[in-house]
Formats: sequence, structure tokens, C-alpha cells
Amino acid sequence: MPGNTNPIIALYPGDPTGIGPEQTARILAENLVGDAARILLVGDARIVAMGARQIGVDLPIARVASVRDADWDAPAIPIIDLANQDPAAVVQGAPDAEVGRVVGDTLKAAIDLARAGEVDAITFAPLNKMALFEGGWRFPDEHQLFANLLGHTGPFSEMNVLDEWWMGRVTSHMSLREAIDGVTPDRVRFALRLVDATLRRAGVERPRIAVAALNPHAGEGGLFGTEEIEIIRPAVEEVAAEGIACDGPFPSDTIYLKAFAGDYDSVLAMYHDQGQIATKLRGFNRGVTVTAGLDTVFTTPAHGTAYDIVGRGIADIGALERAVRLAARLATSHESVAA
Amino acid sequence: MPGNTNPIIALYPGDPTGIGPEQTARILAENLVGDAARILLVGDARIVAMGARQIGVDLPIARVASVRDADWDAPAIPIIDLANQDPAAVVQGAPDAEVGRVVGDTLKAAIDLARAGEVDAITFAPLNKMALFEGGWRFPDEHQLFANLLGHTGPFSEMNVLDEWWMGRVTSHMSLREAIDGVTPDRVRFALRLVDATLRRAGVERPRIAVAALNPHAGEGGLFGTEEIEIIRPAVEEVAAEGIACDGPFPSDTIYLKAFAGDYDSVLAMYHDQGQIATKLRGFNRGVTVTAGLDTVFTTPAHGTAYDIVGRGIADIGALERAVRLAARLATSHESVAA
Repeated sequence: MPGNTNPIIALYPGDPTGIGPEQTARILAENLVGDAARILLVGDARIVAMGARQIGVDLPIARVASVRDADWDAPAIPIIDLANQDPAAVVQGAPDAEVGRVVGDTLKAAIDLARAGEVDAITFAPLNKMALFEGGWRFPDEHQLFANLLGHTGPFSEMNVLDEWWMGRVTSHMSLREAIDGVTPDRVRFALRLVDATLRRAGVERPRIAVAALNPHAGEGGLFGTEEIEIIRPAVEEVAAEGIACDGPFPSDTIYLKAFAGDYDSVLAMYHDQGQIATKLRGFNRGVTVTAGLDTVFTTPAHGTAYDIVGRGIADIGALERAVRLAARLATSHESVAA
Repeated sequence: MPGNTNPIIALYPGDPTGIGPEQTARILAENLVGDAARILLVGDARIVAMGARQIGVDLPIARVASVRDADWDAPAIPIIDLANQDPAAVVQGAPDAEVGRVVGDTLKAAIDLARAGEVDAITFAPLNKMALFEGGWRFPDEHQLFANLLGHTGPFSEMNVLDEWWMGRVTSHMSLREAIDGVTPDRVRFALRLVDATLRRAGVERPRIAVAALNPHAGEGGLFGTEEIEIIRPAVEEVAAEGIACDGPFPSDTIYLKAFAGDYDSVLAMYHDQGQIATKLRGFNRGVTVTAGLDTVFTTPAHGTAYDIVGRGIADIGALERAVRLAARLATSHESVAA
């Protein structure tokens, strides 16, 4: 495609103990994202070849030293070959700390490319958080690792995109007890502004955001907790007064139904499982996770490494394809969001 | 139906500010449960007539002083007419404390019938918890009111039945913070035994029970909380050693998917919204709530009073019909469950 001006997405095949390499090989072999993005593979070329073997294809790749050497018109996929992960040292189907260490190294290399302005966004196939942690990258999740590597000290947030819905969350990878403590007026306000800004960037003109309650029945008027009265509602009202179309808090066991019926573009969850139970039930294999609020856009499938089916070439690639497309969509209009 | 030996179910049309009266009138007018239960209405006959008017039917009723006076072969539905709620004093569409007081009185009358052995189980149309509370029945939910009126001092639990799945919970109507404190080894063990016993009573030979984790990613090996390691898993293993088919804890954002795929008959949630988000997304209008572990079986639709559509005769009656059928099914094999 001469004169290709699509965003350049750094694509990392993910933790090689999981289904990432075969998913990556398939979306490239079938050219599923070529219309939306220019793909620069980042990782070990031997792992990409392993993924290709698992789906029974021969995937042409072209090693490049820098993105400037990439020939976007050639059939071979350009790769920054870090040559840091020998497939012979990878046992698929279970997390491995030594592999996790290399996963972190590779994510860091991709982030360095983004910081240097060489790529417009980063998409990665599924990781294993525990392997990353045990491998020495001591963060509760990859999003906090990204923020650290980018030198980002303000708030930011993971979002989960499913079909036309963009689900936000006030807290994420921490114990439920810590999550309750993490529901503060500041964080609710920030999360609402971030959801609004992210959806606008994605092309939604006036995002309609519903806020989920923390407690059952939205606290039943204070009978079952006071966070709705003291923290969440005042924060929602303050942000609504700024012109952002947010409302709530609503009982979390019905608000996702209303959103999926078309009443809202986004539901802001107070904690991880609240949003994830709903979005995974709605469409387990379609969801995409976006790290929003950092200078670099990151996207990844919402599903995990799928150890139960790894290496068999049968992994669904819908979420990874969507992840690349979302990265491209957000990269073209990217700007950082102030807290 | 001469010689009718179906269980006798006390049916209360629920809080008259909501859709209960019209739902009750419809399932009786269309004789939707006559094959499974003998219905004894308990409440105010004028409220039943109001419900019948709202769906445009004339529902014949027969006032009886006691269940012994009921003629099950006659077309008129027998009613213990408490004459305690004038429809003229009811404004539909919003909770009302004075109405809530009468709702509690009526539930107490139904419970007295059950204690006297006059009815085999109780089904009630939707209530409003806040109105009950403000009306002087100072319990976080109706289940705790029932336990109190029955003089039950041990543990018991609400269950949510959706199609063939029976969802249990360790904690229910309390703040999320209190719910976390309520996840104790004792309560997890009790809940598992209660779920198992209730499903067996309902005819499931060897109930397969999955236990949801409290923390995201089931605690990710202790990174996101230790309740899985210290409390939940030991309790599950102890109960499994008794011969109950339980397993877990599993991450709550995927375990409901697995259950709905047929892997389990029940998921035990740690807190209210965890189970309710999943079951309401799966089938909002079909769910039935069962109070399990008390000497009397209580069932009710899982949905609420639906103030947005009240009085229009359009309320779905599927959950109320299922609630009566479940009450009948459980009543025929009822025995109390020891903790």
C-alpha cells in the first residue's frame, strides 16, 4: 500500500506460555488489520515463527533495526527482533517467572519505541500478571508497569471496550478491601473525566456515562453503606456540572442491563469484578482492554493466556484484531488527559 | 380438581405501591399455577381487586376465615382477607412507609399460617425493602424479618434461582465493607452445605457447586488479597471432604460463564452484587429468590416493584409464576437444614 499513512502499531505477541504467538501469527497471516494499521512486531522472531507453526502457516517477516527501515509495501512483516526468548526455554500452558522477566523486558523495549516517537501505539497479546511479578516486574498489573516506565505519576485507568461500550473503573487490580478504600471523590471525578475524554477521542460526540454504585441496591438510601451518599453522588454531580453527561450511582446489578439496552455508552465501575463480570458475560472473546490516560495508548485482548487450549491453533483472534483496530483509532487522535 | 393434593401456597400480592397486585391477578386469572399448587391469597381483597382491574379482568375470590374453609374445587380463589390496606390510601409508583408497615403486618400473618401448619410455603410478589424498614420493620431485608418472626437464630441464606441454576451467597444485604468482614470460614462452610441441601431438596442428585472468589483474579496468588488463601479455599476443601461436590475459589468474572455453559449447577457468591450482576444479566425477568435454611420456604421474584411501569397491566409475570412453582417444588420435600 504505497503512501500508507495508517498509524504504526507496535505489536508484541505477549507471554509465549500462552496463546499470544499463535493469535499474532493468525491476524498477520490473514492480513486482518492491514487496512487500519501498519504493524511493527516487537519481540523474538523465533516466538513469532513458533506461533506461525502452531497455526500451520509460513509467515514472512523482515528484521529491521529501526522503524525507519521498515518497508510497508513489502509482504514481509517488519520486526524489531530482540532475540531475547528462545522457544526451547518456553513450556507453554503454565506461568513461568523467567519468561515473565523477558516479557517485561520486551514491553519496556516497545515503550522505548513509543517514547522515541517511532510507533503511535502499542498492542500486546495476553500476558500473565503473576509471571511478570515473579519475574521481577513488581507491579500489580501491566498498566502500572507502563505508567512507571513512562514516568507517569498522575492517575490513569484501565478501560474495557466491548462492541460500542467503553467500561471504566475507579479501582482495578487490588484486593476488594483496598478497592473500597480507593473509592474517593478525587478518583471518581478523575475516572469520569478520563472516560469522557477517551470516548470523545474514539469519536463518540457526547458520551453518556452511568456510574455504578459500590454497595448493593446503591446503598438502599444509606441502609447498606454510605459511600453513595457521601462520596459517589457528590462527585458525579460535580462532574455533571462541568458538562459531562454522567449520572448515578445506580445499583450495579441492573445498570449494565440498561447500558447494553442502549441507554449509556459507558458504565463506570467502582471495582474490577463489578465491571468484568458484566462485560465478560456479555462477550467474553470480544472485549479489549485499553490503558487510558497515559501518553502512550496501550490495547490488549480482555481475555487471558488461555492455557487450556494453548498451542493448538484454535484460539479465537477476534479480541486481538479489535485491540489493534482500537489502538489505531485512538492513536490517530491521541493527546494526554489531564487529571 | 377433586382430591387436589398439591402443596398449599400462601400468596401475598406484595407491596401495593408496585406491580405485585396486577401480577398476582394475572397468574390467577390465567390459572397459570393451578397444576402445581393450591393458592391461598393472604392480604387485602380490595388490593387484589385493584390488580384485577389493572389487567382488565374480573377475578372471583372467596373470603375464608381459615384454610380449612377453602373449597379448592370452586373457581373462586380463597383469600384470608386481612382488610388492612385500603387502595385509596395507596399511591402507586413510590415507596411509602405507612404502606410498608402494613406489608410487614401481612407477611407476619402469612408466617403465622405457616407456623400453624395451614400452608406449606409462602410466595410473595415484590416488596420495597426501604418502605418495610421505614414502616417499622427494622431489618436489612425481608429474609431477616422472616427469620426473626420464625424465631430462627441460626444462619440461613437467600438464593437466586434462574432456569436450572441455583445461585447462593455468603453475605447479602449489607455494605460491601461489611460483606468482606462477613466472609468467614464458618459462613462459607454453612453456605456450601445449605446450597447442597437445597438443590438436593429441589431434585438435583449431586449438585455441582462452584465457589466465586472475593478478590479480582481470585486474589492472583495473594497479590490482590489473601481471603482466598486463608479463608475460602480451606473452607471449600473441608466441605468437599464431606462429599459435597464443591470447588474453587474461581475468579468471579469467568465462573458464571462456566456455570451457564453447564459446568456447574450453582455458583456461591461472596457478596450480593457479584451474583446479582451475573444472574440479572442472564435473565432479568426469570429469576426467583428463595429464602433457604428456614423452617418455612419463601419464594419471590428476583425483580423489584418496577415503579416505572406500575398499574399499566404490562408487567411480566414469568418470575412470579416460577416463584409459586418453586415454592411448591420445595414444599413437597421440605425439611430444615442444620448449620
